[in-house]
Amino acid sequence: MPYLAVDTATQTLTVAIGERDRLLAEASVVVKKNHSNRLMPLIESLLVSADLTPEDLKGIVVGHGPGSYTGVRIGVTTGKMLAWALKIPIVGVSSLDGLAMHYRDADCLVCPLFDARRKQAYCAVYGRREVPRDGGGDVAADGQAIFAKMEPDAIRKLEDLFPLLERRLAERESIGSSRRVLFLGDGADHYRDLIVDRFGQQACFPASGARKLVRAAHLLEAGIRRIEAGDTAVAERFAPQYLQLVEAEAKLLGMQTSDACGKDGAC
Amino acid sequence: MPYLAVDTATQTLTVAIGERDRLLAEASVVVKKNHSNRLMPLIESLLVSADLTPEDLKGIVVGHGPGSYTGVRIGVTTGKMLAWALKIPIVGVSSLDGLAMHYRDADCLVCPLFDARRKQAYCAVYGRREVPRDGGGDVAADGQAIFAKMEPDAIRKLEDLFPLLERRLAERESIGSSRRVLFLGDGADHYRDLIVDRFGQQACFPASGARKLVRAAHLLEAGIRRIEAGDTAVAERFAPQYLQLVEAEAKLLGMQTSDACGKDGAC
Repeated sequence: MPYLAVDTATQTLTVAIGERDRLLAEASVVVKKNHSNRLMPLIESLLVSADLTPEDLKGIVVGHGPGSYTGVRIGVTTGKMLAWALKIPIVGVSSLDGLAMHYRDADCLVCPLFDARRKQAYCAVYGRREVPRDGGGDVAADGQAIFAKMEPDAIRKLEDLFPLLERRLAERESIGSSRRVLFLGDGADHYRDLIVDRFGQQACFPASGARKLVRAAHLLEAGIRRIEAGDTAVAERFAPQYLQLVEAEAKLLGMQTSDACGKDGAC
Repeated sequence: MPYLAVDTATQTLTVAIGERDRLLAEASVVVKKNHSNRLMPLIESLLVSADLTPEDLKGIVVGHGPGSYTGVRIGVTTGKMLAWALKIPIVGVSSLDGLAMHYRDADCLVCPLFDARRKQAYCAVYGRREVPRDGGGDVAADGQAIFAKMEPDAIRKLEDLFPLLERRLAERESIGSSRRVLFLGDGADHYRDLIVDRFGQQACFPASGARKLVRAAHLLEAGIRRIEAGDTAVAERFAPQYLQLVEAEAKLLGMQTSDACGKDGAC
């Protein structure tokens, strides 16, 4: 029985249906707005085109961010409602993984950036690392390396991200790997000048349109492995990974703290 | 203005819309039959979801095979009719490219196989090769290698393909590259035992469902480059690349030859 994966953390609405190691259908559309109006019709038309009904689904995989609040919420809420209504498990996967996995064979660092404004980005760092010969997975290159997350999802200022990448590049030099970083996502477009100023020829950017969008098929793969390992959430309690508080929430929390601690903030 | 790419050479119906270096929408569905009923609705719904009409299209890219006669014909005929009706250029791209390009960063030989029965497959061989530093393209790995077709599309008996791959593997050993072959496509599934018998640990197969289907987005990229270089066909004369004659055509041709040459076949 198939699973459904959904991601709305970026301007790309992306939906995939498939089983372990077998993709049945996928649709991705870049839309600047109205994710909320367009997600359910996209899911529905994809189910129809795959000759499936919602009741055929075995579980839901959702890109849980990071990304724009509104964007992430639409996918997560839709996923939760489907999981709750159909009484099937739900699991969240990083939306950054859904973009980075296009470059899982590349011999360089991979750094997807979702622009978070003010010279900040939601980001993570990935690279191939050596593993014992049987530790594989989808190993095309040599049977001895897997694509792994080296720095976790976080919202980072570029001034913090850049030294972090430089340290990782220096490590790679010591093991003879490529000393380049591939920057992906709208943050890579937006901050391209700053990146090139800092990294020069070590920075590269995707030329391929086919590899610039988050793919739900990537999330599906990662998510199914997690669901099968029992690593799922109860639909009602499943939450997005915003990685920072909404401004209003931060203010509210500040006010509550002040209330509890007196006006001067002392407890 | 965007281009449309379509491929129906395999069980995957796949459609993409995009510009040079920018994908706008893509949909892929595995369907065992009824490609002919389902292709136009898929194109139409994708155009609608991207807020486009057919008149917005600047050109058509079609996977021209190789593959099943019926499958290839549906995509090619649809592409030709659209190009003719809209008076826009059409270009054909190998359907095998649409599958192989998933592994364009991999440091191994890549051999997509579309099963052609009787231990035969439509196939080609790809690999990364070194180029001068500015010769790039979408080069993630090192800025010094591009993914290129090393053996052309052909229908080959496995007994002919295997020695050809062995020669290519031996060449790669001499330049220090990975001595593995990644086999893709339904032919890789069908003939897996024969492949493993011959290549043992040197053979690998995709574990990733996300990389098992032809992607129209890959064809779009290759096709737009060709259209922009002026390498297009007149819609009326555009033809699929079957790479072998249909049995009936072969018989007809045989009969015509016999007619011309007398019953004993001597001219």
